[in-house]
Amino acid sequence: MNPVQLRQKIRSGEHNSNTSGYCHGFVQCNLVMLPKDWAADFLKFCQLNQKPCPLIGVSENPGDIHLPDIAADLDLRTDIPSYRIFKDGILTKEVTDITEYWRDDLVTFALGCSFSFEESLIADGLDVRNISEQVNVPMYRTNIECKPAGPFKGNMVVSMRPFNPSDAIRAIQICTRFPSVHGAPVHFGDPSMIGIEDINTTDYGDAVTIKDGEQPVFWACGVTPQVALEQAKPPFCITHSPGCMLVTDLPNSKLAVL
Amino acid sequence: MNPVQLRQKIRSGEHNSNTSGYCHGFVQCNLVMLPKDWAADFLKFCQLNQKPCPLIGVSENPGDIHLPDIAADLDLRTDIPSYRIFKDGILTKEVTDITEYWRDDLVTFALGCSFSFEESLIADGLDVRNISEQVNVPMYRTNIECKPAGPFKGNMVVSMRPFNPSDAIRAIQICTRFPSVHGAPVHFGDPSMIGIEDINTTDYGDAVTIKDGEQPVFWACGVTPQVALEQAKPPFCITHSPGCMLVTDLPNSKLAVL
Repeated sequence: MNPVQLRQKIRSGEHNSNTSGYCHGFVQCNLVMLPKDWAADFLKFCQLNQKPCPLIGVSENPGDIHLPDIAADLDLRTDIPSYRIFKDGILTKEVTDITEYWRDDLVTFALGCSFSFEESLIADGLDVRNISEQVNVPMYRTNIECKPAGPFKGNMVVSMRPFNPSDAIRAIQICTRFPSVHGAPVHFGDPSMIGIEDINTTDYGDAVTIKDGEQPVFWACGVTPQVALEQAKPPFCITHSPGCMLVTDLPNSKLAVL
Repeated sequence: MNPVQLRQKIRSGEHNSNTSGYCHGFVQCNLVMLPKDWAADFLKFCQLNQKPCPLIGVSENPGDIHLPDIAADLDLRTDIPSYRIFKDGILTKEVTDITEYWRDDLVTFALGCSFSFEESLIADGLDVRNISEQVNVPMYRTNIECKPAGPFKGNMVVSMRPFNPSDAIRAIQICTRFPSVHGAPVHFGDPSMIGIEDINTTDYGDAVTIKDGEQPVFWACGVTPQVALEQAKPPFCITHSPGCMLVTDLPNSKLAVL
């Protein structure tokens, strides 16, 4: 199934769950939709914090339901399996279609997601533990402060994948090629150095096994903008539901800067 | 002083000590000179073990005293500040001129050296501890076996520089660009994983301070071929003396693969 076909199945209601594992080789994106009065500050927040908030696409005009540069024939109101609707920063609804909630002032941001680099790590023969243990990647709130922009601020959330040192070095090399999907890790080793008290207690996702000789390696995570949205409390906001991403027509390889 | 000028001072006897710190921006090389009967196996050893033995130049014909691709007007017999002469694998003499020892069957190998990547790390603002503490880089024998080629074999020697994790990640990125000067590190963290019992007891060079929050990061080291020569015991061999390198006309930036 190619991305166009999957998006059509999502639109028709045939597919309304996780997109993880679908359309191998294509970029999947986190989504944030904000009223245009809030969009400029959020855009600035993304530009100041590119590792957690790497922008892959932004709507050309408020109210656009298309992102033609990254997905053909896209309807942003129906082509994502599940959406979350926030009012004043509080999650109020989870729906599979936002047609009735759509507003002409909404600006859509598509942000890079770790699925792309995980695919490259696996292709290189590395064991991505959350994949091999079939759980959600472990994520943690850190003490690394994002650079604020208007009302948007907060600490970075990181995802963690354990590797032995030589595999970690290889993972750093591979991810360096992909700055628009979080790029190189931000930390490895002692979790307390970035404010994580207990590696076995995640803030989001599931804990994974860290084997003897392995070190936890931490990447900037796309949950960070959600934390910034919680802080900013915009009156209205729509995001994708975790794991239910915008599947684009961009090959992951197109994101490689070298 | 440019490399041509320095080599002339070395040739005339005005400079007969370390080349470290001279000719900023230019590649310096480890040297190995072997009788041609031994050269093919050594070349194979270098190709099989490129991280510790990255070849930058090889003489075109046995007996050549020039390496025109890397240094203009070079005389290999006089233009290195100090040489070591080995017989049957045993160091027999240290001299500043090998004219009287020269043989028409000698093949010269010029191998990349860590000076080049240290310069790039410092240029990026990283603290290279052996430089800031003004000592020789700490080096250790490991349990990582090199791939053997004929009589040449042995375990990898590594150099160590401590960094906090985010600087280590940056160092991995920078060194990845320079495969011909040992490339990315081979290990970080627990020294016992690569057979190093005590990080404070070096096999070559000097110990350096590892600060709180830092981890030791290990690079393949150009002393590895010397260990392979000790194992192989060729009847005759000449190398540079440690720290007294062949200073080439190649800018370090030319070694960057990207």
